[in-house]
Amino acid sequence: MVVALQLSTVAGRPALAQRKQQPLKARRGLVVRNQATAAAAPPATGAIKGTKEDELAINAIRFLSIDGVNKANSGHPGLPMGCAPMSYVLWKEFMTVDPKAPKWFNRDRFVLSAGHGSMLNYSLLHLMGYSSVQIEDLKQFRQWGSKTPGHPENFLTEGVEVTTGPLGQGIANAVGLAAAEAHLAARFNKPDAKLVDHFTYVIMGDGCNMEGISSEAASLAGHWGLGKLIALYDDNRISIDGHTDISFTEDVCARYEAMGWHVQHVADGNHDLEGIRKALETAKSVTDKPSLIKVSTLIGYGSPNKADTHDVHGAPLGASETAATREQLNWPYAEFEVPQEAYAEFAKGAERGAEARKQWEEVRAAYAEKYPEEYAEFESIVTGKLPENWAEKLPKFTSEDKGLATRLHSQTMLNALAPNLPGLIGGSADLAPSNMTLMKMFGDFQKGSYAERNLRFGVREHAMGAIANGISLHSPGFVPYCATFFIFTDYMRNPMRMAALSEAGVLFVMTHDSIGLGEDGPTHQPVEHLTSFRIMPNMLTMRPGDGNETAGCYYAAVLNSNAQNAKGIKRPSTLVFSRQGMPNMDTTSIEGTLKGAYVVHGGEGTPDVILIGTGSELCMAVDAAKKLEGEGKKVRVVSMPCWELFEEQDEAYRNSVLPPEVTARVSVEAGSTFGWEKWVGSKGKSIGINEFGASAPGPLLYEKYGITVDAVVDAAKQSMAA
Amino acid sequence: MVVALQLSTVAGRPALAQRKQQPLKARRGLVVRNQATAAAAPPATGAIKGTKEDELAINAIRFLSIDGVNKANSGHPGLPMGCAPMSYVLWKEFMTVDPKAPKWFNRDRFVLSAGHGSMLNYSLLHLMGYSSVQIEDLKQFRQWGSKTPGHPENFLTEGVEVTTGPLGQGIANAVGLAAAEAHLAARFNKPDAKLVDHFTYVIMGDGCNMEGISSEAASLAGHWGLGKLIALYDDNRISIDGHTDISFTEDVCARYEAMGWHVQHVADGNHDLEGIRKALETAKSVTDKPSLIKVSTLIGYGSPNKADTHDVHGAPLGASETAATREQLNWPYAEFEVPQEAYAEFAKGAERGAEARKQWEEVRAAYAEKYPEEYAEFESIVTGKLPENWAEKLPKFTSEDKGLATRLHSQTMLNALAPNLPGLIGGSADLAPSNMTLMKMFGDFQKGSYAERNLRFGVREHAMGAIANGISLHSPGFVPYCATFFIFTDYMRNPMRMAALSEAGVLFVMTHDSIGLGEDGPTHQPVEHLTSFRIMPNMLTMRPGDGNETAGCYYAAVLNSNAQNAKGIKRPSTLVFSRQGMPNMDTTSIEGTLKGAYVVHGGEGTPDVILIGTGSELCMAVDAAKKLEGEGKKVRVVSMPCWELFEEQDEAYRNSVLPPEVTARVSVEAGSTFGWEKWVGSKGKSIGINEFGASAPGPLLYEKYGITVDAVVDAAKQSMAA
Repeated sequence: MVVALQLSTVAGRPALAQRKQQPLKARRGLVVRNQATAAAAPPATGAIKGTKEDELAINAIRFLSIDGVNKANSGHPGLPMGCAPMSYVLWKEFMTVDPKAPKWFNRDRFVLSAGHGSMLNYSLLHLMGYSSVQIEDLKQFRQWGSKTPGHPENFLTEGVEVTTGPLGQGIANAVGLAAAEAHLAARFNKPDAKLVDHFTYVIMGDGCNMEGISSEAASLAGHWGLGKLIALYDDNRISIDGHTDISFTEDVCARYEAMGWHVQHVADGNHDLEGIRKALETAKSVTDKPSLIKVSTLIGYGSPNKADTHDVHGAPLGASETAATREQLNWPYAEFEVPQEAYAEFAKGAERGAEARKQWEEVRAAYAEKYPEEYAEFESIVTGKLPENWAEKLPKFTSEDKGLATRLHSQTMLNALAPNLPGLIGGSADLAPSNMTLMKMFGDFQKGSYAERNLRFGVREHAMGAIANGISLHSPGFVPYCATFFIFTDYMRNPMRMAALSEAGVLFVMTHDSIGLGEDGPTHQPVEHLTSFRIMPNMLTMRPGDGNETAGCYYAAVLNSNAQNAKGIKRPSTLVFSRQGMPNMDTTSIEGTLKGAYVVHGGEGTPDVILIGTGSELCMAVDAAKKLEGEGKKVRVVSMPCWELFEEQDEAYRNSVLPPEVTARVSVEAGSTFGWEKWVGSKGKSIGINEFGASAPGPLLYEKYGITVDAVVDAAKQSMAA
Repeated sequence: MVVALQLSTVAGRPALAQRKQQPLKARRGLVVRNQATAAAAPPATGAIKGTKEDELAINAIRFLSIDGVNKANSGHPGLPMGCAPMSYVLWKEFMTVDPKAPKWFNRDRFVLSAGHGSMLNYSLLHLMGYSSVQIEDLKQFRQWGSKTPGHPENFLTEGVEVTTGPLGQGIANAVGLAAAEAHLAARFNKPDAKLVDHFTYVIMGDGCNMEGISSEAASLAGHWGLGKLIALYDDNRISIDGHTDISFTEDVCARYEAMGWHVQHVADGNHDLEGIRKALETAKSVTDKPSLIKVSTLIGYGSPNKADTHDVHGAPLGASETAATREQLNWPYAEFEVPQEAYAEFAKGAERGAEARKQWEEVRAAYAEKYPEEYAEFESIVTGKLPENWAEKLPKFTSEDKGLATRLHSQTMLNALAPNLPGLIGGSADLAPSNMTLMKMFGDFQKGSYAERNLRFGVREHAMGAIANGISLHSPGFVPYCATFFIFTDYMRNPMRMAALSEAGVLFVMTHDSIGLGEDGPTHQPVEHLTSFRIMPNMLTMRPGDGNETAGCYYAAVLNSNAQNAKGIKRPSTLVFSRQGMPNMDTTSIEGTLKGAYVVHGGEGTPDVILIGTGSELCMAVDAAKKLEGEGKKVRVVSMPCWELFEEQDEAYRNSVLPPEVTARVSVEAGSTFGWEKWVGSKGKSIGINEFGASAPGPLLYEKYGITVDAVVDAAKQSMAA
């Protein structure tokens, strides 16, 4: 508490009430620095409080970043220039990594949450000696096929842990990385063997702190007490619109304290290396709370005319300002030239990391020998190799089994997988009793019980998604899942996309999948959502029609989470489950589900009409088929739980399911009909809903919106007549 | 500051470090109340500190809510039971509304951000005397066609201001409502005539406070200093997963203080009416900060066996527990029976409101006479009647005009509309210089300059959308716009959907619309986003191909924002603009754009092939047409800036643009090809991108992903041969 009070004195802004009325220039949309705030900025010039070598190393980061952005004629030099001192101290003296073994399990994780400053990350990787980022790579910044894209992408560049750019994702990923570490440490460490023991470091900016996702993630990190999460907040008070005074005047430090973080402030992040060092040491020593270190810097430090302005945020310095900056920072080296002294400083950090890895390998070997059972489980998580029996407990169902909501089947599958899938970990955004996501053999992951595997995310969908991504990217064997109502994917669409892009094999468990949820009404009823994930690249969207298909969807989701697919990359899945019940069928299967679509009724010969159903409407298609058969028609029913998997089958299989000569086709799905033309063709019909739902009992809504067996029968007749 | 310190003593939780390790039951996923926290809960029984009539009125709220939920056999009784005292004091003594004139301009606005407690809102409306909610309506809770849906829906129920349910949207809407009030007050009030002067009250719960959007909105409200925004935080410490101890242990009050709010705490919200009253009075007296009043309550207060548990959150009490609750609260009345004394108490509030309206009408009349010019503008905003000349400054372009990015055209249109559109107000989520959204004749809306019309949202997309919705729903003449990069609609998808659902006529200005943005890479490149909005009901998605079409899109967006469409309801628009330039065309027009799709090349006779383009690919279609014409083909080019508007044209027009007999068709659009089957048919081809983009210069990406004139030409030949 003493720390807190001191800090608010040091870091405090003047009370809002005391701040002067904005002068006219500010009113006109121009940035005028508030005098009181300007006083809080660190000095724009002066000597680094450190050695000559420190200065060279720090300026090497700055000029590699300047040069990279200049050469690309595109990018963000301001952040690397301002963050160079803190990141130098961090990487040289604190980050425990071995550039020769970028994927070493026990490495510290680094996340540049302010991903636009990617040249900072690339410069650091290069200077530390990662072979993934050579000088040639830095020269290819933002070019086609390079390992140095505009924002850090983990799947392109070794040494980059997660993909960042959309602000706030990185800090939430980092909460996931730190939670993963806490979990594995509690689960595997022994009094005589610390197998898991690393920190997660983040650099985040004003933009990250304005985003709601960072608040969600920070609140949860505080609740969980993740003591090995340390975030450096680059307080440069500049965003794209200008000075943060125009939109962001809260007391960030006080907010983090309220959320249970340990908070420090380094007032001069441009020069005070010792202050940075001490703050990092203190942060490491606080083991029961995550740490925020606000480091006040100047964006574009060193640029005489652009530092401390938004001009240096997202545009190249250009030749003349680069020259001026060289002069101001006393940098006589050529473009992309790095003095050996700078490399030498970073090499000390790399050596420290290599030594740590060597020691860890000894620990690992001893552990493997002494605790073979635990080690096997640990290894499965570290390597991603699935145990042979991982799926053996997935149950089978027949029509004799009671019909259930697929959300209940989903619970069955999670509980069937959990005992044999060491990396399965997850939970819900405060909807566990509705999403049915608790693994009954485990307790809650909480401060004091990190070894447990049920995560309680609270009502924080956005952070939940990004935290799950972080867990996935921590170790290949994690199979994280996270859950909410399907409608609330609207709150977490970016992390779901980021999972797909960055190859994080997360299972997004989404229940209450249609108007079938009934009385909660249109704010809670997905209509367009199935389609909206079918169009997302690298995301599998699955909607099973009964128990066997729910098992099949989990089977497919785990395989894809584990990169077991034709592309050989991890793919996340959106698993879409009903609130309401539906019958089990005899003809559904895991095997069929894995193919995306398959015949569940009327497979022999050429049908007069094909009915395609998904999820809770599959049984409706079967009922319609029976009615039509009563009228003498030959009818095939195709279940299509996953478009994407079906599209990946060969043409022969696809044509065997949907013979091209059969143009009478009807789809039925309680969602948007948009895009179903692809499967039903120009003579086909689609039954669905293309407007918002309403509040009323679910079965009545199906009638009111015309999603009925009779509607399918009528559509089939129309299609046959077309 | 003194207030703050007192509060943290009263409201403070024990330090996290001091809290005991969770016992085993908690670890197993069961809720065990932490003793220290339990102590902070107000007593579960006891007399209300007020009159007998107060008690009747409060219990009337509770039992109407209980009865409504029981009858529907679905819903959330817990919140209304707990919030009855605070909402009674608020509505009877503070809320200035006239139930006889629910849309009276100067009414106080009430938002139930915790929308699942909708029976609270309906009970209050009924008891206050709103004709929209009769006892019969309460009996129809959650039924088809009723005015009492599962969550409050402004478009169904007079007296409901905004649609809530997705947590956190309501508090952000309320920030918009309060910002709208502050703006209109600063713009129109005169020293002798306070035409605009009302409060915005919110009831929010733990769930709202866990959501990131509420942090974003609260931070901005604090920055803006919205003194007439007063939020009652229903601190009942229960959410669906159980006690908030399992996921939400931050100090909410301290967080709000850090964000610049005035914060108070009422420790016993179940009984202490005077405490609630005093806190509301104090909150009203604090004019330079928004106010949070944390009111500690028990969820399901009065239910002897379910109060203070999550069982009462989202399920009916049921017959026996209702009987027990009747007994405990001494409520002898029949189902849905309300004693006259209860009505009489609320009638006092209604009378107060009616009197206030009468007085305001006098102010209005005097203002209209004394300030006719200002009044005309004011009236336009209050009534929604567009000025006759609103669109007259929209420019026209020819091929002689320099080709520009549509984001630049967008800026031109905003600045052409602003002088003649009194309700136009908006801004960007910290991307104003990239989105090009500043209205140059206005300054920034800030504390001290509320009359200005450029909003600086900071990097807070989610709250931005909901705030814009609140502004739209404040008064019919507002035309709010808000902007970010198109990719970041992923951060604000729910408010965009809520705009469409709740008929908020917001213009969502989205720039950097494709891989054309280039070097920022796949985290910033929309692929699936156009499609994802085309499938959203009641949302117009527009992507103009040059200057004239940009004008047309704004024209259509404003008309639809103003309910000038066949459906007669307000519709929001997603306006999608390019980063990169494209030529202006002679054949594009506002009129064509308003029809959604139209012929821009080769309109005479029956073509051999039709090329359909949108946005920056329209010119590509034209170039391909010319190439094909060079080879002797007859080619038509259709520009399709808005699918939805085209779908609303009559069949004759649609067939005139896309003659059914011409089956050789090609679409070209730098986005997902999903769904284009609808327009190109089974013999057509679609050029687009169905994978993530990459970091490289934009023109190169077009080549790498095969979105080129040659690709269109090839596809056209294939389609003609099919």
